[in-house]
Amino acid sequence: MAYPQETFLTTRLMPGSLISRRRGVVGSNTLSYQLEMLKKTGRYDAFDLHWHSSYEDPPDVWPIPNHLFWDSDIAKWIEGACYFLHEHEDPKIDAAVKELVNMIRGAQLKDGYINIHYTVVKPGERFTNLRDFHELYNAGHLIEAALAHNQLYRNDDLLGPILKYVDFLCGEFGPKMNQTPGYPGHPEIELALLRLYHRTQNPEHLELAKFFITERGNPNGVDGCHYYHFEARQRGEEPGVRMPYWGDADALWYYQAHKPLVEQQTIKGHSVRAMYLLSAAADLVRLDQTSDGRLKDAIYRLWDNMVTCKMYVTGGIGAIKQWEGFGPNYFLPQGSDEGGCYAETCAAIGVMMLAERILQYDLDHRFSDIMELSLYNAVLTAMSYDGTKFTYVNQLASSDEDLSKREEWFKCACCPPNILRLLGQIGGYIYTRTTGEQDRLSVHLYISSSTEFKCDDQRATLIQKTDWPWSGRVDFNLETQASRITVSLAVRIPGWAKEWTMSPRPPPDSEEKGYLILPATWLSINRSFTLDIDISPRLIAPHPFTDQDTLAVVRGPIVYCVEDVDNPWVLDHFKSILLDAACSLDEKTVTDDTTGDTYVALTATKGVSMLTKDSIHAYPGVECNGAAKFSKRIIDRLNFVPYYFKANRGGLGQARVGLRRWHHDI
Amino acid sequence: MAYPQETFLTTRLMPGSLISRRRGVVGSNTLSYQLEMLKKTGRYDAFDLHWHSSYEDPPDVWPIPNHLFWDSDIAKWIEGACYFLHEHEDPKIDAAVKELVNMIRGAQLKDGYINIHYTVVKPGERFTNLRDFHELYNAGHLIEAALAHNQLYRNDDLLGPILKYVDFLCGEFGPKMNQTPGYPGHPEIELALLRLYHRTQNPEHLELAKFFITERGNPNGVDGCHYYHFEARQRGEEPGVRMPYWGDADALWYYQAHKPLVEQQTIKGHSVRAMYLLSAAADLVRLDQTSDGRLKDAIYRLWDNMVTCKMYVTGGIGAIKQWEGFGPNYFLPQGSDEGGCYAETCAAIGVMMLAERILQYDLDHRFSDIMELSLYNAVLTAMSYDGTKFTYVNQLASSDEDLSKREEWFKCACCPPNILRLLGQIGGYIYTRTTGEQDRLSVHLYISSSTEFKCDDQRATLIQKTDWPWSGRVDFNLETQASRITVSLAVRIPGWAKEWTMSPRPPPDSEEKGYLILPATWLSINRSFTLDIDISPRLIAPHPFTDQDTLAVVRGPIVYCVEDVDNPWVLDHFKSILLDAACSLDEKTVTDDTTGDTYVALTATKGVSMLTKDSIHAYPGVECNGAAKFSKRIIDRLNFVPYYFKANRGGLGQARVGLRRWHHDI
Repeated sequence: MAYPQETFLTTRLMPGSLISRRRGVVGSNTLSYQLEMLKKTGRYDAFDLHWHSSYEDPPDVWPIPNHLFWDSDIAKWIEGACYFLHEHEDPKIDAAVKELVNMIRGAQLKDGYINIHYTVVKPGERFTNLRDFHELYNAGHLIEAALAHNQLYRNDDLLGPILKYVDFLCGEFGPKMNQTPGYPGHPEIELALLRLYHRTQNPEHLELAKFFITERGNPNGVDGCHYYHFEARQRGEEPGVRMPYWGDADALWYYQAHKPLVEQQTIKGHSVRAMYLLSAAADLVRLDQTSDGRLKDAIYRLWDNMVTCKMYVTGGIGAIKQWEGFGPNYFLPQGSDEGGCYAETCAAIGVMMLAERILQYDLDHRFSDIMELSLYNAVLTAMSYDGTKFTYVNQLASSDEDLSKREEWFKCACCPPNILRLLGQIGGYIYTRTTGEQDRLSVHLYISSSTEFKCDDQRATLIQKTDWPWSGRVDFNLETQASRITVSLAVRIPGWAKEWTMSPRPPPDSEEKGYLILPATWLSINRSFTLDIDISPRLIAPHPFTDQDTLAVVRGPIVYCVEDVDNPWVLDHFKSILLDAACSLDEKTVTDDTTGDTYVALTATKGVSMLTKDSIHAYPGVECNGAAKFSKRIIDRLNFVPYYFKANRGGLGQARVGLRRWHHDI
Repeated sequence: MAYPQETFLTTRLMPGSLISRRRGVVGSNTLSYQLEMLKKTGRYDAFDLHWHSSYEDPPDVWPIPNHLFWDSDIAKWIEGACYFLHEHEDPKIDAAVKELVNMIRGAQLKDGYINIHYTVVKPGERFTNLRDFHELYNAGHLIEAALAHNQLYRNDDLLGPILKYVDFLCGEFGPKMNQTPGYPGHPEIELALLRLYHRTQNPEHLELAKFFITERGNPNGVDGCHYYHFEARQRGEEPGVRMPYWGDADALWYYQAHKPLVEQQTIKGHSVRAMYLLSAAADLVRLDQTSDGRLKDAIYRLWDNMVTCKMYVTGGIGAIKQWEGFGPNYFLPQGSDEGGCYAETCAAIGVMMLAERILQYDLDHRFSDIMELSLYNAVLTAMSYDGTKFTYVNQLASSDEDLSKREEWFKCACCPPNILRLLGQIGGYIYTRTTGEQDRLSVHLYISSSTEFKCDDQRATLIQKTDWPWSGRVDFNLETQASRITVSLAVRIPGWAKEWTMSPRPPPDSEEKGYLILPATWLSINRSFTLDIDISPRLIAPHPFTDQDTLAVVRGPIVYCVEDVDNPWVLDHFKSILLDAACSLDEKTVTDDTTGDTYVALTATKGVSMLTKDSIHAYPGVECNGAAKFSKRIIDRLNFVPYYFKANRGGLGQARVGLRRWHHDI
């Protein structure tokens, strides 16, 4: 059992890589920038429990108060800050963490309860709306913050009060007569409790997480009815009242609570909730591999449904803005003017969390390929090169109403500190160490780095050096004083790699589910070896059922897009551009002046054209019996940049990933 | 100024045509079938003002009571019945009309007010929710019923009390100090008042209609704010409460009330409301051609936006179920599992109403082509061959959740009686007689029929005989004792007609905006002539921006579909069928055993294939650099039937209009 939140400490990123650059920027800029935003918006002082004028603001999403998530914003910032403070001292950040921890301690009520809204704004109403009011979600983030804090400071300043809060929750919630049989509308506390259990081994922590996960969606949870129906009735909520984010009159599926998780056939509802819930479920599976196989099956089933039918080529999930989540199978428009595209940053981070957890018990590149896809595209695109501007929604195509641009902050600010947390612990996503029956180190991501582990009771270090994702070459070196190598190595061959070579050659038939398994015996002889993966550009078409007859340009794990900065003639968000599947793409390594970022730019010089305006016809369609139909003109050059890099250099905010496919017969 | 509700009396349909068959079935079956449904559901007795147990039913769409539209269901049935009773005596229907009229008379309050809900269920709350509670919508339908009733019975049994109600409304609503400056959430009364004005010439009726149309969307309507905001505040409605059919927090666009009509740039919101509002606006324009040109411009602008960007190839409008209305430009998925398709029957009828009204002042086939398209497809598909089963939503593709099937009735039953009304007066849509400066008879639709009019003060009859829509040949004969022909004739050449001939040949350059103008002088010599229009099958592709890379098979005005009854091997609602634009289509005239309907069936024998299942790939897309991508297999025959004919012969309920286009390079 390992968590990237802990194992990242054994890994060191070398400077220079894209990920290391972004992580560095978070340490140098984002942490203090976000601290400033927390102060400016009132969040920083909120655990002081004074009244804040914004508590009376009309809610952006009625009836959810805008400040309802403030607890979690603070908690996530503390958690992220703690990851960075391991490496670099930063007195200002350190002092802020300490001050915040003091405020949280002071905000704890006698019975252990901690929550800003229900202490300051609505005292006496706690736990009356588990469905919508994020109380337990906030508690979950406080737990995660406390674990990170304790790991850094090795004291109980935060973990102590949080454990008291958890004790209180363990008494409050559960299946017993005197307990509330409810569970949170937004999962998060489940995965936090399981990680806490990993640390405390207190069976109550495991039990509560298990209860929240398995009780969820019980149609007869309390008094013969669904807990959320019961709870709504208790509140006196008029039947028929519809939350604005519900797609229908009783959208329990929004919360993944329409039926028990093990019975769910397709992935539905709010995508971040789905990812957090499944991540916790995967933790439960790996904690107890002998447990209910139906939970494991459900995770595979929902993962497969998500990846094959509900994921964008960027690794983003969630097409529907109204419920920030999944649409029907294959409903994946690229932009809001084409029917919607949401692909929330937190959801993509959730995809990575879930993939990482499944990889712990099922080493298969179909999980790590997606983990890497989300990281380099749907996640990385969400922060500006300098770490001070963010996106919440990550559309694949801009439109006049939704330009491709970044914001300094959000009223609902879940995404920016989530990037902070993720990049803080990113080292933990590169490697997985499994001991026990199989003594193995798995390499999921190629990023210049080293990781330390025990080998035959000696210190060992695996070093990988690479210019990934711009080059497919990775040089490995295993350094250890151990006389005997006792650990095997698994290195990932991405599913999209058409060719790869390793030198020296690996043992025959060593590929298992997309990982080369290099046995200890082989490693003893080959402590240095080089993997070379073909990362030449590919054109990716979504499934025909998406009705997106488009091509996306991809190179290695990097998805590309076109942006008006590099194609200043564009007027219509590249909607009318046609790309031939037989186009030729030139590569060029570029170091951008404004940002200092180095990347491989691509240019299509042949096979690009543009639909020209047809005469307006007063008929909903045009005839096209056999004959050529829509007129088009040739475009000389179309310039692509990595999708994550967009919206960093000004411009008009026009950008697009998938380009309409040119068919020779139209 | 003419209304089809009146002019249909001068036209006689000959038996045998598709339209005449359907109209006959309405007279023989639907009228009495719907009467039975009105009785069974409690609607029939509702004007008796007794409490009905269903008044306490939980609303299907909270907070709208299910019985809120009952007044209009009754009114529309009366209106439709009156159109049919002109031709055929039917003592049962006649007696029911009289009984209903008596009940309505009895339901009128002393001040003139008539409404079931606000008299029985919520007395004292009248006019507190113009936005959502359909009070004035119901009043509008009562006016239309009264006009039809008076036209048939030539008495004031219904028109009398309704005029009293209208007097009351004229006092209640308007811009004066003591008046309410509100307007209905669902337009309808506007067009009813304008038709009433046409009859009464009472300027108050014109003024009230004009006020409702022009005041709508005024941002400072009352106390410096929008009337609907003011009204919501008066009701004590919590700010932020969102109606379930609102797409965002303050969806005034749902009601076409987000800004004044003259300022609206794109067609938005609930599609029936939009059509009824624009129909009334078009009435206003033709009443006063010298009036505000901005209104005329707005009608053209919104019509063009609708037809080119928001209309299905069936003439249906409205892609979005949530608000029963328009989505973004070019968002036109075919079925609910592909992102939505609504195409409500009433909305398609509304398209016909609007087209017919514009044709009265702008004779252009771009309006009549669409009028005919909607009639034969989006409208006609909504009633079974025997007139006893209906559809409300008219998707272009079925799915497992939304099979292609018909219902006996609906809780919100606006559509079935609307078909009744339309087919009752359909003769009025075939011809338009314009007198004044230009003495002209225009022929918009080709349906075997005769129409009578005055020519040089003599009776004249134009007779058209045709097997349209199955044959493109139409034989015209003008019969009159008049020695001098004083009227010109305009006959429509559809925009989709690649070829046409007329014999004898028309005068040179006689085509104006898709109508052949045959001058009186020419007609004097050629009282009989034959028009022959090429109606050979066409393949129609929606605009590329719809992302619907599909082909629809169309022949003349008839859109075809594939149905599992004729293609019993289908398993996936024809989702994976590919159709080559160069396919060959065989025609065959069929008389169906079950229904007795005769139609031209089409079969594609070459150029049909089917995508076969690709191996599951754990990646959201597949690579397709130049190479063939998705595997497919050839299908021998694909059988098509007219779209209107679907769901009449049993089967599994699988059907589709647009088939995925086969490209030779994939």
